[in-house]
Amino acid sequence: MSKPLKIAIAGLGTVGVGVIKILESHREMIAARAGRPVEIIAVSASNRSRARGIDISAYDWVDNVLDFTTRDDVDIIVELIGGSDGIAHALARQALDRGKSFVTANKALIAHHGNELAECAGKQQLALRFEAAVAGGIPIIKSLGEGLAANRLNKVYGILNGTTNYMLTQMEATGRDYGEILEETKLLGYLEADPSLDLDGIDAAHKLTILSTVAFGVKANFDDVYTEGIRRIKLVDIEYAKELGYRIKLLGIASLAKAGLEQRVHPCLVPNSAPIAHVDDGFNAIVVDGDFIDRTFYEGRGAGEGPTASAVVADIIDIARGHHGPAFFVPARAMQEVALISMSDRVGPYYIRLHVEEQPGVIADITAALRDQDVSLHVMLQKGSEQDGSVYVVMVTHDTREQKLMNAMNQINALSSVIDKALAIRIENL
Amino acid sequence: MSKPLKIAIAGLGTVGVGVIKILESHREMIAARAGRPVEIIAVSASNRSRARGIDISAYDWVDNVLDFTTRDDVDIIVELIGGSDGIAHALARQALDRGKSFVTANKALIAHHGNELAECAGKQQLALRFEAAVAGGIPIIKSLGEGLAANRLNKVYGILNGTTNYMLTQMEATGRDYGEILEETKLLGYLEADPSLDLDGIDAAHKLTILSTVAFGVKANFDDVYTEGIRRIKLVDIEYAKELGYRIKLLGIASLAKAGLEQRVHPCLVPNSAPIAHVDDGFNAIVVDGDFIDRTFYEGRGAGEGPTASAVVADIIDIARGHHGPAFFVPARAMQEVALISMSDRVGPYYIRLHVEEQPGVIADITAALRDQDVSLHVMLQKGSEQDGSVYVVMVTHDTREQKLMNAMNQINALSSVIDKALAIRIENL
Repeated sequence: MSKPLKIAIAGLGTVGVGVIKILESHREMIAARAGRPVEIIAVSASNRSRARGIDISAYDWVDNVLDFTTRDDVDIIVELIGGSDGIAHALARQALDRGKSFVTANKALIAHHGNELAECAGKQQLALRFEAAVAGGIPIIKSLGEGLAANRLNKVYGILNGTTNYMLTQMEATGRDYGEILEETKLLGYLEADPSLDLDGIDAAHKLTILSTVAFGVKANFDDVYTEGIRRIKLVDIEYAKELGYRIKLLGIASLAKAGLEQRVHPCLVPNSAPIAHVDDGFNAIVVDGDFIDRTFYEGRGAGEGPTASAVVADIIDIARGHHGPAFFVPARAMQEVALISMSDRVGPYYIRLHVEEQPGVIADITAALRDQDVSLHVMLQKGSEQDGSVYVVMVTHDTREQKLMNAMNQINALSSVIDKALAIRIENL
Repeated sequence: MSKPLKIAIAGLGTVGVGVIKILESHREMIAARAGRPVEIIAVSASNRSRARGIDISAYDWVDNVLDFTTRDDVDIIVELIGGSDGIAHALARQALDRGKSFVTANKALIAHHGNELAECAGKQQLALRFEAAVAGGIPIIKSLGEGLAANRLNKVYGILNGTTNYMLTQMEATGRDYGEILEETKLLGYLEADPSLDLDGIDAAHKLTILSTVAFGVKANFDDVYTEGIRRIKLVDIEYAKELGYRIKLLGIASLAKAGLEQRVHPCLVPNSAPIAHVDDGFNAIVVDGDFIDRTFYEGRGAGEGPTASAVVADIIDIARGHHGPAFFVPARAMQEVALISMSDRVGPYYIRLHVEEQPGVIADITAALRDQDVSLHVMLQKGSEQDGSVYVVMVTHDTREQKLMNAMNQINALSSVIDKALAIRIENL
């Protein structure tokens, strides 16, 4: 077991630099834990000379990452480039086709092509590992696939995107509205190059797809995830939620029942009593329900150089230890196709925020629209008027089927007194 | 990989029954995940005919568990008997000597004999696994040894005993004192057969020893853990702590720094802002600090049939998957001996509760004792008198070296006006 494990790293951004720092600073400790030395053989990035704060002169430099796949002195290719297609996908395919194990932090790649890549890896008993793709510092993939493997898991949910969680936390903490916090977050460099990945819930949906696949052993498809981001959340929503005993969190929720698989990413009102309501700033948290463990809860930093690189290196150590099992913990042929539950079938309570002109009959029109769809109200709040004479009206419904709620919302939005499109936020009494 | 993995189960109490339920009810799912069927071959317990709610007639019954070790049709022996020595220890030794892998939920066994057993297992490349020994439903051993393996871990702490956590939670929730809650907890059957294991922190110390060993790769010794239980906590302490912004939790805390290894189990005041302050009832929680992940937090059910059996079966699945690495995740020869930090060197703030006769000069005597040891006060609370004319005085100190605090406490306890021995509780601003 003393033969070194040789790795090539594609991509030297934050995470790539973190991986090098860990492997070099913990060289001996990792060799003891892995049972063999782990050596970096070659690296590649788009810009060779960029200042990175580390010395990469000891490694072979390769201009074209695909050249890693033909080298006999490389056992594992570590992909830290990103993107669901293009070079990352090509590298994954070629690496596995040519007998290299593949470790990645790329959630988009695994969410879109995980099944295909798992099959390639499985055929040749190669490792395909992606712990870093979900919730950086939390070893959630390993926990789902190994630690909780005795359970039939029925629900996995959590805060999967640190950037939007930071933004929501900041809105509440500073009393500033979405637009201001968005600008600040941009300046801090916390947003993805394409901010839509964060703000529209796409990044969280990538991660949720991976969690569903691992937790349930099903062929989860990214395109089947209902996805809604945080762009429409206003400070007023956070304040009303607080008054009602809730906090607003962007959650990814996946569950599997007899009726099928449900996968959704959207803002939620979660009760103050739920531990997940208190996961703030850039932290991620995941709750897992299983038939024998009941409930377990995991919290840690979701991103950043250290936590993400830690997950990449854990995968490398696992491979060094000889763990070459299937990527999704059951053979690709055993992954099940399951029916999907439509978002319009969701049943639960809703928070509704309306911004309307204060004129006679407005409330009567709104409540009539709700009545027509059998939506009954639990709470209604209206507190005086804004300076321009408009009013905010906030309502909490009893359990309602989503389709009926949306019908009522459409009817309400057609009223001439409605200023902004009404916002409905699902309440999850976790 | 389709050859069945054959197991023998020693001990059919709550956990043993849970293991059988999981393996039988999830037979196909586990075979898919493990890559091979897992079959129960033989079982043993002290009483064959006891009603267990499951049918064990399909398994060979063995009167003497040591007979498992000579059977060619057994791959893994699962020990669920308990106790650090006696039959559990003998079974472990013989199993490993005769080439059987060994899975146990026995924290006392691993805390006392883990190093010796790890060496036996390592020599023959056999698996020795004990996920169920610490924090039942939380896969913390796997997380420490594999998921976080890229990190030098520097601190691990948590709520490791569900029974005492339940008792402290109940005292606060019901406003009843220790004695009453203890009686209730006994009636509920939550206490170990020897209640001292729970109440005096011994069970938590067993678990902490195992956590230290795995987290730091050191030869941790149970006898080196400073251990103090909850017997002296009164309702008045819980109430004063609440008023000061804290909750009282029995924590196990292990840290490794240049100066050496610190391991202690004792009640703590933890600030309300710490997530661990809100882990209630029978739940366990563990916080892990590492150099690259920063901080991660894990919460789940600490005991009970389902969670503990889930951990046992996860270990079995791991072995079926071919994971036979060292028990403590580094070879036994690489486990380090480290210096120990004495409890008397602890530096931090303390909560002190005094019950004294109300007479002139009492406070002067007490504060003089503290001054003589350079203990300075941050808060002092005294609120009227009890019916018998005695008073409770509560103080919070600034950072103090424990030795000095204890010197002052001894001086205070020698005062004639002191009714009960003064109680000091360490404040951990986590």
